[in-house]
Amino acid sequence: MSEVPPPVVWDGDSVRILDQRALPAAETYLSCHTVDDVADAIRSLAVRGAPILGVTAAWGLALVAATTRETSTRALLAELEGAGDRLRATRPTAVNLAWAVDRMLGLARVECCAVGSTNQRVHERLVAEAVRIEAEDRAACDAIGRAGAELVPHDANILTHCNTGSLCTAGIGTALGVVVAAHGAGKRVHVWVDETRPVLQGARLTAWELRRRGIAMTLIADTAAASAMAAGRVDLIVVGADRIVANGDTANKVGTYPLAVLARRHDVPFYVVAPTSTLDLATASGADIRIELRDPLEVSAPLGMPFAPEGTPAWNPAFDVTPAELITAVVTERGIARPPYGRSLRDLITMRGAA
Amino acid sequence: MSEVPPPVVWDGDSVRILDQRALPAAETYLSCHTVDDVADAIRSLAVRGAPILGVTAAWGLALVAATTRETSTRALLAELEGAGDRLRATRPTAVNLAWAVDRMLGLARVECCAVGSTNQRVHERLVAEAVRIEAEDRAACDAIGRAGAELVPHDANILTHCNTGSLCTAGIGTALGVVVAAHGAGKRVHVWVDETRPVLQGARLTAWELRRRGIAMTLIADTAAASAMAAGRVDLIVVGADRIVANGDTANKVGTYPLAVLARRHDVPFYVVAPTSTLDLATASGADIRIELRDPLEVSAPLGMPFAPEGTPAWNPAFDVTPAELITAVVTERGIARPPYGRSLRDLITMRGAA
Repeated sequence: MSEVPPPVVWDGDSVRILDQRALPAAETYLSCHTVDDVADAIRSLAVRGAPILGVTAAWGLALVAATTRETSTRALLAELEGAGDRLRATRPTAVNLAWAVDRMLGLARVECCAVGSTNQRVHERLVAEAVRIEAEDRAACDAIGRAGAELVPHDANILTHCNTGSLCTAGIGTALGVVVAAHGAGKRVHVWVDETRPVLQGARLTAWELRRRGIAMTLIADTAAASAMAAGRVDLIVVGADRIVANGDTANKVGTYPLAVLARRHDVPFYVVAPTSTLDLATASGADIRIELRDPLEVSAPLGMPFAPEGTPAWNPAFDVTPAELITAVVTERGIARPPYGRSLRDLITMRGAA
Repeated sequence: MSEVPPPVVWDGDSVRILDQRALPAAETYLSCHTVDDVADAIRSLAVRGAPILGVTAAWGLALVAATTRETSTRALLAELEGAGDRLRATRPTAVNLAWAVDRMLGLARVECCAVGSTNQRVHERLVAEAVRIEAEDRAACDAIGRAGAELVPHDANILTHCNTGSLCTAGIGTALGVVVAAHGAGKRVHVWVDETRPVLQGARLTAWELRRRGIAMTLIADTAAASAMAAGRVDLIVVGADRIVANGDTANKVGTYPLAVLARRHDVPFYVVAPTSTLDLATASGADIRIELRDPLEVSAPLGMPFAPEGTPAWNPAFDVTPAELITAVVTERGIARPPYGRSLRDLITMRGAA
């Protein structure tokens, strides 16, 4: 399905990024000619969503190698390391970004130090690796969709939060990919789309994707999700993840945790859907996850509209942490992990290592 | 305190209504010369909030009596009954509106049928009754504030939802009145203000009132309330009510119920604050409360900004129902009711009847 334009495109000597801030009103691409352009696009949310941040960071480093003025591989490696630091610093919570930077730099260190290495060869290898990361993400989405669609009953009312579709992956999406796959498999689905304040990824992006794909949906204020659940009109909840740590605690878009609490109260299955690149088993529990605080103006003056009185102070945590005990299952491209997550998530990683 | 302009003003032959849709950007009053002007102002949310809707409806009926062209008291009564029906139909959930209409019409029926009655006398009596309803609401706010302030510890972080202050009462407010009273009593308080999508009464109105009164506050997206609670940064929650039924179940602005669920999880006291005119003991439980569904555009294009793709369907319940079991106490001008509410609320009404 290609109803949704790709969020990130490699052009050989630039990275084109679909400016998601302008959606749904306009479909415009930003041309990033330097890694700082890429970092700015990430920081300003022109591109957002954990998996595509990994892909974008990979292209950012490929861009450095493609456009470097350095003449030695040693100097190029230093340039790449600096670029990696700048990319990592843009958004602290999603682990995929750092994961992709580490993977690209790991390769760069090997290539730059190899006997007979040249900057041209490093460039080719890094582009190939970014292609591979992108292709893996696309394949992961497909595998996630297949696994997750099994969990979706026929005639399902599915509630979701934020945007976890084609705009934030290289494929059909993670949590929204499950919806797309279930729909594609002929199941009748209807999606409750949380608008997802403050940045309104649900109202702007998920609504746009679902309408493009012809999937039935209804937009709601975030607070109305509880009313839909209380009315028995939600059969399951699917959300993405920005970081899933060793015990299963999950950081995701702010507003995810209250949904999980309500799902438990109303006996609604609550699924976290993400590629295994979102797993961070080196972190023990959610208490250790750093939550990004963003500009208060996203709350007080959304999309430039000053709703609140000028100068109103606001607190704007971009993510929250859902404790593992509230999560019914974690759906990945490697299969479905269920409690206790301490073991089931480790098993998925072991599979990854073994593959 | 008069830092906040009055939401409704009687002018002798018109009702002036502060247009809350324009706040905080502009302070403009609508001049209502007919009861249909008043009904439009209520329906369009130029004036909103359960207690002031009662006061406004009372003035609407006084306006009919003040401007009638009928010459017999019998015809005037028919005109008043018709006006009462139109006012009642504007907003179905808040009970105070119907309560005030019933009270005014009850008086009108007596006055119109009294021996020697004249339309002038009916007019005078209805104006006097509206003055009384307004004064009672103001006094109720003060009494609520005194009772509620006792529940506020020093150095309290108080979370609130929607607007329950001077803009929606004739006095200092209900839930926000508790904050104002605690602050006035010298307690140090800080308020977490839920922005309250879709109409943003928190961001636009509560933030405006608190800043005018010099009370410390921080605006948050509704979904961030859970994060504040999880971080141990909320000591109590105060909310208003649009209808409290016999078993204590409470209809209030959508988003109240999920707060109550989260408050229970985090052991945060959850107080419903309202005058006894909000009690509807003729209704048995929350399942019997009719929830107003409002225009989907309030969700998809808030304040005229089309955030979602054009034509996106939305579901917009204006209220939700919080079950009594999640409510720590109900604070009224007659004192504080605690579970079991079946008895404690009836006791408050009996006091009302006895006073």
